[in-house]
Amino acid sequence: MDADPACVSSGPRWLAKAALRAWTLACVPVLVAGQLMSDAQAAEGMWTLDNLPLAALKSQQGFEPNAAWLSQVQRAAVRVGGCSASIVSAQGLVMTNHHCVTRCLAELSTRDRPVKAAGFLARKPQEELTCSGLEVLQLLSERDVTAQVQAATLGMTGSAFQKAEDAARAQLARGCQQDQAATKRCEVTVLYRGGQYVLQQYERYSDVRLVWAPEEAIAAFGGDPDNFNFPRWCLDVAMLRLWRDGQPLKTPVYFRVEPQGPKPGELLFVPGHPGQTQRSLTVAQLERVRERLATQSIPAASESRGLMHLLSQRPDPTRTWAVQAMGNIENGLKVYKGELQALFTPALWTMKQAQERSLKAYVQANPALRTRVGDPWADIERAQQARRELELEVGLIAEGGAFAVPHFQYARTLVRGPVERTKPDGQRLREFSDSGLPVLERRLRAPTPIDPLFERERLQWSLTRLRSLLGPDHPVVRQVLGVHSPAQLAQAWIQDSRLHEAAERVRLWDGGAAAMQGSSDPFVALVLAIEPYARALRERFEAQVLAVEREAAQRLALAQFDRDGRSRYPDASGTLRLSYGVLKGWQEAGALVPTHTTVAGLRARHTGAAPFAMPERWQNAGATVGAEVPFNFVTDHDVIGGNSGSPMINRQGRWVGLVFDGNQHSLGGSFFYDGQLNRAVSVHPAVILESLRSVYAAQDLLQEVLTGQAPSR
Amino acid sequence: MDADPACVSSGPRWLAKAALRAWTLACVPVLVAGQLMSDAQAAEGMWTLDNLPLAALKSQQGFEPNAAWLSQVQRAAVRVGGCSASIVSAQGLVMTNHHCVTRCLAELSTRDRPVKAAGFLARKPQEELTCSGLEVLQLLSERDVTAQVQAATLGMTGSAFQKAEDAARAQLARGCQQDQAATKRCEVTVLYRGGQYVLQQYERYSDVRLVWAPEEAIAAFGGDPDNFNFPRWCLDVAMLRLWRDGQPLKTPVYFRVEPQGPKPGELLFVPGHPGQTQRSLTVAQLERVRERLATQSIPAASESRGLMHLLSQRPDPTRTWAVQAMGNIENGLKVYKGELQALFTPALWTMKQAQERSLKAYVQANPALRTRVGDPWADIERAQQARRELELEVGLIAEGGAFAVPHFQYARTLVRGPVERTKPDGQRLREFSDSGLPVLERRLRAPTPIDPLFERERLQWSLTRLRSLLGPDHPVVRQVLGVHSPAQLAQAWIQDSRLHEAAERVRLWDGGAAAMQGSSDPFVALVLAIEPYARALRERFEAQVLAVEREAAQRLALAQFDRDGRSRYPDASGTLRLSYGVLKGWQEAGALVPTHTTVAGLRARHTGAAPFAMPERWQNAGATVGAEVPFNFVTDHDVIGGNSGSPMINRQGRWVGLVFDGNQHSLGGSFFYDGQLNRAVSVHPAVILESLRSVYAAQDLLQEVLTGQAPSR
Repeated sequence: MDADPACVSSGPRWLAKAALRAWTLACVPVLVAGQLMSDAQAAEGMWTLDNLPLAALKSQQGFEPNAAWLSQVQRAAVRVGGCSASIVSAQGLVMTNHHCVTRCLAELSTRDRPVKAAGFLARKPQEELTCSGLEVLQLLSERDVTAQVQAATLGMTGSAFQKAEDAARAQLARGCQQDQAATKRCEVTVLYRGGQYVLQQYERYSDVRLVWAPEEAIAAFGGDPDNFNFPRWCLDVAMLRLWRDGQPLKTPVYFRVEPQGPKPGELLFVPGHPGQTQRSLTVAQLERVRERLATQSIPAASESRGLMHLLSQRPDPTRTWAVQAMGNIENGLKVYKGELQALFTPALWTMKQAQERSLKAYVQANPALRTRVGDPWADIERAQQARRELELEVGLIAEGGAFAVPHFQYARTLVRGPVERTKPDGQRLREFSDSGLPVLERRLRAPTPIDPLFERERLQWSLTRLRSLLGPDHPVVRQVLGVHSPAQLAQAWIQDSRLHEAAERVRLWDGGAAAMQGSSDPFVALVLAIEPYARALRERFEAQVLAVEREAAQRLALAQFDRDGRSRYPDASGTLRLSYGVLKGWQEAGALVPTHTTVAGLRARHTGAAPFAMPERWQNAGATVGAEVPFNFVTDHDVIGGNSGSPMINRQGRWVGLVFDGNQHSLGGSFFYDGQLNRAVSVHPAVILESLRSVYAAQDLLQEVLTGQAPSR
Repeated sequence: MDADPACVSSGPRWLAKAALRAWTLACVPVLVAGQLMSDAQAAEGMWTLDNLPLAALKSQQGFEPNAAWLSQVQRAAVRVGGCSASIVSAQGLVMTNHHCVTRCLAELSTRDRPVKAAGFLARKPQEELTCSGLEVLQLLSERDVTAQVQAATLGMTGSAFQKAEDAARAQLARGCQQDQAATKRCEVTVLYRGGQYVLQQYERYSDVRLVWAPEEAIAAFGGDPDNFNFPRWCLDVAMLRLWRDGQPLKTPVYFRVEPQGPKPGELLFVPGHPGQTQRSLTVAQLERVRERLATQSIPAASESRGLMHLLSQRPDPTRTWAVQAMGNIENGLKVYKGELQALFTPALWTMKQAQERSLKAYVQANPALRTRVGDPWADIERAQQARRELELEVGLIAEGGAFAVPHFQYARTLVRGPVERTKPDGQRLREFSDSGLPVLERRLRAPTPIDPLFERERLQWSLTRLRSLLGPDHPVVRQVLGVHSPAQLAQAWIQDSRLHEAAERVRLWDGGAAAMQGSSDPFVALVLAIEPYARALRERFEAQVLAVEREAAQRLALAQFDRDGRSRYPDASGTLRLSYGVLKGWQEAGALVPTHTTVAGLRARHTGAAPFAMPERWQNAGATVGAEVPFNFVTDHDVIGGNSGSPMINRQGRWVGLVFDGNQHSLGGSFFYDGQLNRAVSVHPAVILESLRSVYAAQDLLQEVLTGQAPSR
């Protein structure tokens, strides 16, 4: 493997300090292996389990994970919604973040039992509360199916490529899943944006119950102001339990706790499910990401933030829903802003442009490769033009952003169901494939509560935005609004629809096409009215953008593999990855940020006013919880959104922390990893154990976490 | 004058179509004069009256404005707030846009007399309502003082430069104004970002009364959805009257109406006060503008939009204030988004980079010039780094964005007053200079109503944003919030402050330092607490950014003048300019947008639901107002925000239209003028006259507008 010529020839000489740091990193994957665990760039990489940098781990750290260790990681590190989690007892106890289950907590909350605000503890299994919307997935096996998928799409482009790829993936998933949809889920995951396809089989746990959650005021202490900050004091933990056949799950595979937490210098691993990174995007794609963030994502989220701020002042239940939405919006907004800030950093562009030039030069210098690879950069750039023309409409109409209430999504599923279900699998819209249908059905059948006042406000607002963004003369705007105002329609539709009732949704779903024809629901009428436009838009976007990008990315990966082999990790994809790193602070404004916080710091930060107010139990725990108990800590693991809830484990397979956040520099991690600044933030096991003991008097749960075995009752 | 080498050597060959159009324009000022009125780039330029392109006007259009014509333009085209206006009768009748006086309309509105919503007509002068916040300025004379200011700043940089320039400008203004502050105002205006200084003397009219305003529903028909759109149907007009010594002003200088409006092909002029363009910014400055729009301005305005949307649903008076704020926010947001969109257009960067390269090359090729000019581009680029570090804090703390209520600005004026007023003029903060003080005092003394509920919400929100943006550990955040939440502080401060009462403000202002020391007003305490930080921040920003940019811009202007003479117009600066152009539609999505709309189109667009609902009087006017009456029209004049309310006049000095908007393409006009797409939107005189006659039964006012003389009563 040759050194990247761009790195060698034009690096340090003309780059400023910040750029230089980015530069060093940019060149790492090319210099690779032998240096990976050196201090400067310790922890970059979200590695798939089948492609760990074993040589580096062995030579630098003297660590060789054996099959048992890897198998434990694969089975005990699970997925829950868009988050990560881990099995931590033989009775199916699952640990994740409080913020990963807030929707369930909100749904379970009543005036008499405010689970989300006041916390919850089940003292015995029978008291555990069902989280009806949650599903936990455990990776059973995976198999490379690149050859099959690429054979099915050979020589195709655009729409034909997309359809053939969909069909091939659906067929592979179907062959894997067979008739076990109730307990298994099979998916073909795309790695390297098309360079590799992997068929994964998961165990599905759909009976998930809440065991313990602390008060939101301590789980999210510091709220939005402290989000992505450190030092930090969040007890961002919740315990769930997997049930199977009416009993707590019995499982031999779980992580035991190491109560001391991480040791200085100790090699630590984060197995988890990072959602999405964009490190292998081309320069043209990054430019489009920046423009979309600036012109669409951030303005939309900002407007919602202002709206939710005031809705949070309304009486319950509107207040509860608004606060819940606000949390998601503020988190998303910080992510967007951090990403945008990174995309306004000149050093990032210098680095990405150099990487791109270098790979282009490599392809140009190899005629045989050049014939196979062509110019994927130019194809992707054309697709960005199409993105620019289409993305606003796609977001509003094809994805339904203009009708921001669950009723609309329910109605669309109901309208499309009878149409799609009659088609052969592989020719359907992706979400109606055999492997996708259970997810859709689950959402339709879940008795998720809906607040009509909250939804009316959201609908009025999103209809107003539709008109504002596309203009009153856009055909869909004319069709939807007619002679009415957004306020009039939102009022009438929410009042007249019955889609907030699960029973009505199930009736329509089970009734198929006939039930649809008989429905007078206003959201069904809305979906039907705009369906031709929405479908055409989606098809155009898939053909002119998604298919082009995917097909070109395959050729980019071909060039990449040809030069670098598999020395690079793929972009995050929501599937299981392993990161490694160590306890480490960082320099901020000239001062070193220490690795740990303690209970003493929490008490000093308590002001009594939310979000800096400890809940009563914590205020009263002064005598029993020691000031020196470690609370949160930072490591240099390479993590991103989706890693929330990941266990941090040591060589012995014991868990020593619970990842719940990154520092603000980690937000640029979507595009590149900066080992000097990028940090993961975790809850220390000591504060979890100590709070179970002294704050929540949860002796049985404490025993179960400590020993991995629930006490016999 | 040589042709720009960049234009000649590297233009058409490698540029795409859109870029080519921009390119042609970019090169115009260099090819200049002889071609200016050719069809392709008819109307670019916001010209100062002393530097009109007279040769081009004469050779292309056969028009030579004489001294009388120019004098009428200078005196009858006036300034009102941030808008433009014109005197249209010998009795001081002033015409401007409805949207330029909405604040006054809101302040005059009561439950029994909803002036803003229902419109207003004074049937005799005694019925006219005083707009207490409005002031009309009429340009009396101007004089080039470049030599004086530049002599005072010779060889200086940074803070010293800034202070010397301030002092020189203040001294010149003082010498002009002397003791006539009640009726005169003198200002030194900066053109070419420092290339030229002009001392201007204005007549101040501070007794301004409302004569007529139509219903807001017809003035702003189409609301935010149609803002910056065309075709359009807005009767965006209001009539004011200047009073002097308790009588309507008698003036020989005014524009008469041409009831037929503009003729096809007729040369038309827009005298007005365009606020700000950014066409001469360097590439580094434009990059910073883009980043600030994306990361600060648009998110802030978007959040406010969401907030105001819900506050608009509260009971009055909160509703009224929120609706008023919403109008401004939505308008600002469209401007920001249009500007950002322009700054994501590759052709713009290609053009700006080429212009910059070309001027740099010119300087490099002239050693003597090079010695005097140095490298202003590099100096400006360094200032952009400082902007990047400081602008967020400056906006929140130095400008007070974190405390978004009038109380804070009142308190700051009151606190700084005693300190600044004891200093010699020229050493004070700019707004406390002798020429600035009357404006400050006027604001303090005006009995502007304040709604405490509305202000409490705004304050809570802006304090929340302060903490969110700077983080809970920023020294000012700690100082301001202490152990309290934004909600607690907003509640307490608004409740305890008396600064909403004009009498209290006047008492504190007149009481000077002693009154300040005795004040326990919470906003006074807030201002005092953060004053050291806020002052230091402002000083740093002025020294490291504003002074550097101004000083470097002088050298840039030097290079520009050396190469191009005065063939370029300066960036807009809120002072009187003249644009010229003709009636002209444009191509949109392959179709020609026609130049006029008519009453028939208004009726077709009426849905009955706001903002597409004609007010009752218009619904009932079907029999009396002809469908063919022209309503709004478009021309290719080069206008920008601040031109709102400008008269459009013909060679005879008759007004033929009232400018109130631009099309969406005009928003990029901040950075460049595109003659193919950029259009000004005006109200046709026929619809004004016809509505006075048939809708509002305003016969006397109609006579006054038609004849320029109020009927004798």
